[in-house]
Amino acid sequence: MSASDAIVHVPLGERAYDIRIGHGLIERAGELIGAATPGAACAIVTDENLARTHLPALERSLEAAGIRHAQVVCPPGEATKCYRWFETVCDAIIGARMERGDVVVALGGGVIGDLAGFAAAVVRRGMRFVQIPTSLLAQVDSSVGGKTGINSPHGKNLVGAFHQPSLVLADVGVLDTLPEREFRAGYAEVAKYGLIDDPAFFAWLEENHRGVFAGGPERAHAIQTSCAAKAAVVVRDETEQGDRALLNLGHTFAHAFERLTHYDGARLVHGEAVAIGLVCAFRFSAALGLCSGQDAGRVEGHLRTVGLPTRIRGIPGWDGDAAAILDAMFQDKKVKRGALTFILARGIGQSFISRGVEPSSVREFLDAELARA
Amino acid sequence: MSASDAIVHVPLGERAYDIRIGHGLIERAGELIGAATPGAACAIVTDENLARTHLPALERSLEAAGIRHAQVVCPPGEATKCYRWFETVCDAIIGARMERGDVVVALGGGVIGDLAGFAAAVVRRGMRFVQIPTSLLAQVDSSVGGKTGINSPHGKNLVGAFHQPSLVLADVGVLDTLPEREFRAGYAEVAKYGLIDDPAFFAWLEENHRGVFAGGPERAHAIQTSCAAKAAVVVRDETEQGDRALLNLGHTFAHAFERLTHYDGARLVHGEAVAIGLVCAFRFSAALGLCSGQDAGRVEGHLRTVGLPTRIRGIPGWDGDAAAILDAMFQDKKVKRGALTFILARGIGQSFISRGVEPSSVREFLDAELARA
Ligand SMILES: NC(=O)c1ccc[n+]([C@@H]2O[C@H](COP(=O)([O-])OP(=O)(O)OC[C@H]3O[C@@H](n4cnc5c(N)ncnc54)[C@H](O)[C@@H]3O)[C@@H](O)[C@H]2O)c1
Ligand SMILES: NC(=O)c1ccc[n+]([C@@H]2O[C@H](COP(=O)([O-])OP(=O)(O)OC[C@H]3O[C@@H](n4cnc5c(N)ncnc54)[C@H](O)[C@@H]3O)[C@@H](O)[C@H]2O)c1
Repeated sequence: MSASDAIVHVPLGERAYDIRIGHGLIERAGELIGAATPGAACAIVTDENLARTHLPALERSLEAAGIRHAQVVCPPGEATKCYRWFETVCDAIIGARMERGDVVVALGGGVIGDLAGFAAAVVRRGMRFVQIPTSLLAQVDSSVGGKTGINSPHGKNLVGAFHQPSLVLADVGVLDTLPEREFRAGYAEVAKYGLIDDPAFFAWLEENHRGVFAGGPERAHAIQTSCAAKAAVVVRDETEQGDRALLNLGHTFAHAFERLTHYDGARLVHGEAVAIGLVCAFRFSAALGLCSGQDAGRVEGHLRTVGLPTRIRGIPGWDGDAAAILDAMFQDKKVKRGALTFILARGIGQSFISRGVEPSSVREFLDAELARA
Repeated sequence: MSASDAIVHVPLGERAYDIRIGHGLIERAGELIGAATPGAACAIVTDENLARTHLPALERSLEAAGIRHAQVVCPPGEATKCYRWFETVCDAIIGARMERGDVVVALGGGVIGDLAGFAAAVVRRGMRFVQIPTSLLAQVDSSVGGKTGINSPHGKNLVGAFHQPSLVLADVGVLDTLPEREFRAGYAEVAKYGLIDDPAFFAWLEENHRGVFAGGPERAHAIQTSCAAKAAVVVRDETEQGDRALLNLGHTFAHAFERLTHYDGARLVHGEAVAIGLVCAFRFSAALGLCSGQDAGRVEGHLRTVGLPTRIRGIPGWDGDAAAILDAMFQDKKVKRGALTFILARGIGQSFISRGVEPSSVREFLDAELARA
């Protein structure tokens, strides 16, 4: 089936790499990794869910290609992105006698990708890295762009590195085993790319979301469009000095919601927080007179249609106030010398970075939002 | 006294920086850091010995310059370069509300420099970093070049990053409080630069070592020459793909000795291991017919003159055999796909990288060496 793979090239000079999107890629991983990193051994980092479902196929494929490999299996969930598992993963890679030219392979969602990527960045001061993202969120977002890291008790992703992979294999077929709630959460990030700067893609999603969810050819198209969108931003701004902040559309709100629910995925997974955050970003933009209420309505309508939460008041088990949300935002790392940075929008596909947003106007917006029925 | 400072510029493009060598630099640190990183706050990482001796002067200087600062004090010693202290230091920096543009300041020897530098490399995916090296080894070696990291139970420096400082302040005066044994250990690295590629510097040291030890003007000259030598190698090969390996002259042996004595500084500090390693590198080169026995004798003679150990059999509390040393070498990270890499020499100042040295010839050499009276 390799003829039907789509390839998104990420032209980062010496660090350029390909994202390959298609079916049956795990079965061909040995051959593809072998071609990208000849002679290298592989340290697979994965979680228990993937160890049950897709790890055996990956191992068979590496064996068939004659690639030495070892693996470390972590528990699933955000809590794994911690110092303790960082240490365990690093020591497991070293213990498997992996050298600088060998490869760390992340088989899993964003949690495994971020953790394994950080380990790859620092073991022997930098090993090669291959991503095999298995959640929709990881395929369209976290596996692209080279951000890796773990959480600190002070907040998410506060410790990490920029470390680009040598290859990304987005096997569309593995999404069939992904829990529906996780798929839907990842869809929030897909929609985000339309909202940032691609109104035609957002309109296409409004028309074709059923095919994306059902696993038709629309799914691979949506993933490819999303990867290409993210890659384009990353290429413009590899280390997040400027433009890349656009990818945070909805995320200043989302991170606050996640912090307030203690990153408890049972209550709110990241993509759900992003969905509410996207609606907030557009409604806040509308409240500031920047975009039309109609556009904000389209955003909320579409996300609701696919079954994502869109209201702050809908967050299970949280009934705090605007002050609590603002507090959580001020702990966010996008705080630059005291002022708040938001991604706002002049309409669908017309987002922009707004630095120095007045906390009082955010608060006013949140008060009104929390009072909505 | 700033007119008498020496400056070694390290021209690494976007990552270029200055190493300033002189007296009273800690007293002027606030002004100098403020100029290099305007508006930034400082998170000082140091150890208990420095907290007693030189931290107060640094704090006064930052205060006088109006620079917000916080500090984290670690226990002294190699054991601090571990995952646990890495975590503590990262969280202390984050907890002090340091942002990406703020500065991590390492005030200490190589242990603090490596640990703080690694934290600076990864907190918020990269903060700025200033080195104030306080041991001779740190001034002439570890603070130059951007290698940072911690140890793993599997070996030294196995987890880390390349992260260049924005500024290095080598205050020659602080060496007055350095224990003599530590000063002498650092001197082994000074001598190493002569042995790598600067025979005139080695000859100068043979003549002037008394002034270097006594703290005369020779000391600053030796430090400056050493920094410039290291910087030149680093600029040729920032991420250790090739040439930089020359800096490992004596170190394949030294790391084995340190591993065999369990990194117990009471028995053998790093520079002492390097001194024995340098002698081994030259005697091995002589045994292989690469360099004259006379040159090997000069190396051993000079290091013995300044009071450094030069014989493997002189390592306190270790009486193992050649096989044990070879075993320890094979765990070393300079092992590349099974073959051993050594830095050998054709004479004083004529070192070169030799890849794929036969373990059997190393063993033969070590057997003879261990049999020496
Ligand atoms: N690095 C970046 O640029 C970036 C961007 C966005 C998000 N992230 C990070 O990504 C993480 C979230 O990623 P995620 O949503 O993929 O979470 P995740 O990795 O926890 O995966 C979600 C759940 O789905 C399971 N799973 C994944 N793929 C599966 C499959 N094919 N079949 C069955 N089960 C499967 C996992 O085991 C897990 O239980 C967060 O930590 C977030 O910070 C990183
Ligand atoms: N990054 C690199 O390129 C590089 C190069 C060489 C060595 N290193 C690392 O450096 C470390 C060794 O460095 P080190 O020899 O400086 O050890 P160190 O940091 O442990 O310092 C030695 C001792 O001297 C004390 N001390 C330091 N300065 C003092 C002063 N001015 N007054 C009083 N006491 C003082 C310290 O508290 C410590 O007890 C090792 O971990 C080694 O791996 C790194």
